[in-house]
Amino acid sequence: MNRLLLESGNYLDSSGNVLAGDVGIEDGKILFIGSAPKGWQSDQIIDCRDKLTIPGFVNAHTHAAMTLLRSYADDMALMDWLQQKVWPAEANLTGEDVYWGSQLAIAEMLASGTTAFADMYFFMDRVAQACVETGIRASLSRGLIAAGASEENLRLSENEQLFIDYHGAENGRISVMLGPHAPYTCPPECMKKVVALSERIGAEIHVHLAETQWEVNQSQKKYGKSPVSLLDELGVFERGTLAAHCVWVSPQDIEILAAKKVRVAHNPSSNLKLASGAAPVTAMLEAGVIVGLGTDGATSNNNLDMLEEVRLASFLQKLNRMDPTVLPARQILSLSTQGGAAALGQAESLGRIEVGCNADLAVFDMTAPHWYPRHDLASMLAYSANSADVLYTLVDGRILYSKGEFMTLDIERVKAEAAARGLRLAK
Amino acid sequence: MNRLLLESGNYLDSSGNVLAGDVGIEDGKILFIGSAPKGWQSDQIIDCRDKLTIPGFVNAHTHAAMTLLRSYADDMALMDWLQQKVWPAEANLTGEDVYWGSQLAIAEMLASGTTAFADMYFFMDRVAQACVETGIRASLSRGLIAAGASEENLRLSENEQLFIDYHGAENGRISVMLGPHAPYTCPPECMKKVVALSERIGAEIHVHLAETQWEVNQSQKKYGKSPVSLLDELGVFERGTLAAHCVWVSPQDIEILAAKKVRVAHNPSSNLKLASGAAPVTAMLEAGVIVGLGTDGATSNNNLDMLEEVRLASFLQKLNRMDPTVLPARQILSLSTQGGAAALGQAESLGRIEVGCNADLAVFDMTAPHWYPRHDLASMLAYSANSADVLYTLVDGRILYSKGEFMTLDIERVKAEAAARGLRLAK
Repeated sequence: MNRLLLESGNYLDSSGNVLAGDVGIEDGKILFIGSAPKGWQSDQIIDCRDKLTIPGFVNAHTHAAMTLLRSYADDMALMDWLQQKVWPAEANLTGEDVYWGSQLAIAEMLASGTTAFADMYFFMDRVAQACVETGIRASLSRGLIAAGASEENLRLSENEQLFIDYHGAENGRISVMLGPHAPYTCPPECMKKVVALSERIGAEIHVHLAETQWEVNQSQKKYGKSPVSLLDELGVFERGTLAAHCVWVSPQDIEILAAKKVRVAHNPSSNLKLASGAAPVTAMLEAGVIVGLGTDGATSNNNLDMLEEVRLASFLQKLNRMDPTVLPARQILSLSTQGGAAALGQAESLGRIEVGCNADLAVFDMTAPHWYPRHDLASMLAYSANSADVLYTLVDGRILYSKGEFMTLDIERVKAEAAARGLRLAK
Repeated sequence: MNRLLLESGNYLDSSGNVLAGDVGIEDGKILFIGSAPKGWQSDQIIDCRDKLTIPGFVNAHTHAAMTLLRSYADDMALMDWLQQKVWPAEANLTGEDVYWGSQLAIAEMLASGTTAFADMYFFMDRVAQACVETGIRASLSRGLIAAGASEENLRLSENEQLFIDYHGAENGRISVMLGPHAPYTCPPECMKKVVALSERIGAEIHVHLAETQWEVNQSQKKYGKSPVSLLDELGVFERGTLAAHCVWVSPQDIEILAAKKVRVAHNPSSNLKLASGAAPVTAMLEAGVIVGLGTDGATSNNNLDMLEEVRLASFLQKLNRMDPTVLPARQILSLSTQGGAAALGQAESLGRIEVGCNADLAVFDMTAPHWYPRHDLASMLAYSANSADVLYTLVDGRILYSKGEFMTLDIERVKAEAAARGLRLAK
């Protein structure tokens, strides 16, 4: 048994309020909040005075290994960016590159309070390896792209193998979805094959959806319907779906997303940096759509800092509605934790500081100047805090990051490998 | 003589490129870049390997002491926020409160790489005192508000006294402007008195302008012209003007701002958090308007982190224009440094790492995971960096902040005073 006590601190409860109290962890789960059961003794104590413990952020959509191309190509038009820069560089990616790029991403996520992420990329067995080794929680999917009308390169069997090898691995810490890239890169015939596999093996689906106006226009022209309608008709939403972006969705699309319980990953930094648009998050929430927050890849962000997404998501909806009361602090924090947990299909066990939930936690130090005075700690977390305030990050009750030290990865090697590999890819 | 060498680092040059080289400082100014003049010896050396030196950020618009009300009232409609929360709390402010609130703000700014700020508030002699003591650069103005049509409370003589006492103080480190709050709080008769004083003593003006749609509508209704036109006709733009916000400006307004060389302080976080709108920064820049960036007060932000404003300002314009190429990394960094220096009327001596400029600098550590790999350092600074990466902050060549330590203020006392005073005000 592994018993850890977060002593004398403050914690963010599932309603978004900050309360004072101990948090006790046993065998990877939250055993109690408030005071310990009689006779319970911890193996280890973290002094949480002047600290705030929150459910770790869930990064609901990223491409971890794209850290290798961070700052390689910015401020470019989307197709120039993809065709001239990203795709040529990615063509030279090796499995080893993806492993080290993912390690770098995991280091950055742990250091900024993220405890779980949903990933879609290539060489996903190497991403899985990085997750197994570092101890972070992840939902992995192989990006499935059909070049033109061909299905040869779809790599469906690779995704199936990933599912067989890793779904539920590490006591459920790693899960696997199928990753049809997007309606415009994985046309109906391919999408049907993905759906058939999803049905056969019981896998959920992670897809990019309605990211740009171009995508919607192209879908209307080609199929006479929106990307959301198209995927709905193809059966993509039947067994649990995580849909990234959903920037250009109509009221009818939103109804479908709500009815089919599609979980949307909203990526405000990426949507703004690529000038894709501002997703109608408030409208989706009003319609009952489940929404989590994501960073997208580090090439279109350019970091994996979930606290930046929290702030930007709230600000953007206030602007969109011209109403400062929408997406208030408690609600946006909930999106970044509970919303993300739901996006990963793990709402029951993740994203809340409640007895029985997985002890995936981030502990913020509150001694920097921007934490004073403390009128409202939830508000301070949402609008004032800095991700560098994170002191400890735990997954399944295990301390993976502690005061600048990474317990499960060799950060100097990770940085050196990522630097060398990133520069090689850019050549 | 005080000679400091920033050795073996990288620095952001005035075109926005990052170059490798030493930076030598003598008597508060940049003496050389690259290699030292023959025989020159430093008194002190900072090892800048793996570090990036930038001109300190200039926060072109804030209300420093409002840190005391940080997180006191968020996610509220503007008038509810002001009438029910901010104004009642401010009514109880003392000079001592403002002094400690300003110290807290200065600590936060120094720790995040800001070396100068433009402030408008009350008890400005106490803000000046905090600036004198801490060594930060500031442009100070007394907020001038006429209650109703009355001018009794205008406090013009207080602003004049501030000018007499502090303009040019500390070898030019502190300057003073007149601070007519806004066209709607300082009506034409009052504004004329401000202009007359500005003419008599040669003071520049700091004003809030065209922040909300309501302000513009009200101005049209009352005066038949926009707030920008109104102030132009009243002569407010004749002797150097810093105008905060300018969210709701027409093409005609923008022409006036450009022609009169008005310096605009763009405050994207505050404008979004209060749902004021998105300023047409790209259009203003295209028209030749000088633009700096500001945080506004910590009640509507809720921190004083200029790097967040850098990122948000760029993202917001990309969204506004639906074009990812606008406000690219180098340009937005320039707004936060050179633009801010110009906003403060100090373009000649500030905001650039060039020989002869004031040595107001921030040194970023580049060893965190988000600094790898390094394809483009200017891009990384704009889009990946975290303000907590700041290791050293210098004003006039003097190290004010060094690896978490504040050299000119008692941070524990500042935090304790701010905490106690903030909570008292909220009662």
